[in-house]
Amino acid sequence: MNQQSSEHLMKQIHAYIESLPYSRNPKGLYDPIEYVLSLGGKRLRPVLMLLAYNLYKEDVERIFPQAAAIETYHNFTLLHDDLMDNAEMRRGKPVVHKKWNPNAAILSGDAMLILSYQFMMQDCPAQYVKSVMEVFGQTALEVCEGQQWDMEFETRTDVTVEEYIEMIRLKTSVLLAGALKIGAILGGASEDDAQLLYDFGVRMGLAFQLQDDYLDVYGDPAVFGKKIGGDILCNKKTYMLITALEKADAQTRRELLDWIAASNYVPSSKIEAVTAIYNKVGIGEICQQKIDQYYEEAKALLEKVSVEDALKQNLMDFVLKLMNRKL
Amino acid sequence: MNQQSSEHLMKQIHAYIESLPYSRNPKGLYDPIEYVLSLGGKRLRPVLMLLAYNLYKEDVERIFPQAAAIETYHNFTLLHDDLMDNAEMRRGKPVVHKKWNPNAAILSGDAMLILSYQFMMQDCPAQYVKSVMEVFGQTALEVCEGQQWDMEFETRTDVTVEEYIEMIRLKTSVLLAGALKIGAILGGASEDDAQLLYDFGVRMGLAFQLQDDYLDVYGDPAVFGKKIGGDILCNKKTYMLITALEKADAQTRRELLDWIAASNYVPSSKIEAVTAIYNKVGIGEICQQKIDQYYEEAKALLEKVSVEDALKQNLMDFVLKLMNRKL
Repeated sequence: MNQQSSEHLMKQIHAYIESLPYSRNPKGLYDPIEYVLSLGGKRLRPVLMLLAYNLYKEDVERIFPQAAAIETYHNFTLLHDDLMDNAEMRRGKPVVHKKWNPNAAILSGDAMLILSYQFMMQDCPAQYVKSVMEVFGQTALEVCEGQQWDMEFETRTDVTVEEYIEMIRLKTSVLLAGALKIGAILGGASEDDAQLLYDFGVRMGLAFQLQDDYLDVYGDPAVFGKKIGGDILCNKKTYMLITALEKADAQTRRELLDWIAASNYVPSSKIEAVTAIYNKVGIGEICQQKIDQYYEEAKALLEKVSVEDALKQNLMDFVLKLMNRKL
Repeated sequence: MNQQSSEHLMKQIHAYIESLPYSRNPKGLYDPIEYVLSLGGKRLRPVLMLLAYNLYKEDVERIFPQAAAIETYHNFTLLHDDLMDNAEMRRGKPVVHKKWNPNAAILSGDAMLILSYQFMMQDCPAQYVKSVMEVFGQTALEVCEGQQWDMEFETRTDVTVEEYIEMIRLKTSVLLAGALKIGAILGGASEDDAQLLYDFGVRMGLAFQLQDDYLDVYGDPAVFGKKIGGDILCNKKTYMLITALEKADAQTRRELLDWIAASNYVPSSKIEAVTAIYNKVGIGEICQQKIDQYYEEAKALLEKVSVEDALKQNLMDFVLKLMNRKL
């Protein structure tokens, strides 16, 4: 079967999303949508959907509407999350609630969510509508549940690792998993294959998020794309912090809690001190082991998918690239 | 065919909505949804859907999920609109963004919108899924467009009657019309019938909204359920105000604009003075004529629906009751 490279798929879906006709009235409703979708990003979810479809079928362009749907849904969540988190910037540009106003962010977000359903239905073959919409609806709801847990964790200091993993599974992983499963369903995959690709996506999403948590502390600023220590400064309940609070001895734990409670400090000192605690407790290694575990589980799940190994390589290469791993 | 009274349908769908299992985790996400749906209301949209279905089929309970979907969608719009309008109360109870917080209103509203799609898909016969979802999606998007126009009109004084009618068509009418059309489709109605019921719903919705605008000025407070003159005090661009600005002579128009611009006044004096202007220009009669026009158009459209007249009486009685008209 003729497969397309992830770069080529990315370019195509990017062009497709750019071509969507958002210049309609009322402008106050559709301009923010066009703005958000024009900010780019890696188009990770649609590419995963196309890669999963491409395991079974060649004519990827047939599911561009569904790929655009998952990207529109993802960008809707960013739009509303940025408002709820009172963020300032997204992808180097002002967020909608600053560039326009909070009401524009609410209402244009609502319209984006509706549009994502429109795209998901568009030209969806009749025999797959029910199962595609079931995966999409369930996933969309779970992402909201993940965001709710994330917000609730902000005011708690007793979040367990287990709770954290469940939160990132809902907030991040299920949408990657759902994108893969929908691509598989539309490609005519068996139920088993579709579920294996879903489970593969969950593990991969968990590995990505832990990698992100790790890189906030130990990343190379030139490569990571964000400032190092951002999570430390805002006391974000990451895998690093939660694990440190769980594993540290009493004195080190007290030290860490003092830094969390501190209100007057030099930012670089806090980053340095908390990193030193992580080093002492060995959080970096614990996190890397957990990433490896999810990565291995993901690989094992993909191996079980009943298509030729050669066909899976494309998807695996894409994931490896995202994980910045060398083979 | 065995038809059910609108009162009986209302009780059934009310009980069905009450029975929906919202007590799931995270509570912070689902409690506000349960709260909003428990505040009651007339369940107008689901009853219309069931009445339309009941023109063709008896087993109304088969479409309770779709009826619950339209009510969930409607309540989602109230939840987000109340936040955008910074309202305090809804149906005599504090709104979600006051009882909880603005973020709860945003995220629980998002989840409600997703749930409304879930209900709309639930047990929807395969042959109708595409057309039902098409009507629902289009309607949902148009309601957002209506809300956007409504917000934009707040800061304008040059809104035309035509623009106003289009705004209320989108914000209010299409959801009533969509409820009827979905009920008809699920009942197995012809495309012509489904469209006639949609158009009937649009006219009916316009008549309802103008009636609401009229009653704010000339209603009996004991019957209307809201304080008289509320729209006048907040300079709401109603059919009454827009028509008065259009029809009044230069001096009266200036008087009216002065009241709109006034910042220091006794509320009852403003209501009295603006009502006197409406009396002088004859806005009450103009509005009543327009209501009659839409009502007659609605009746004529319903007459064309190809079921026995006796079957349509149930739907017409329900509409008449809502219009508070004597036969």
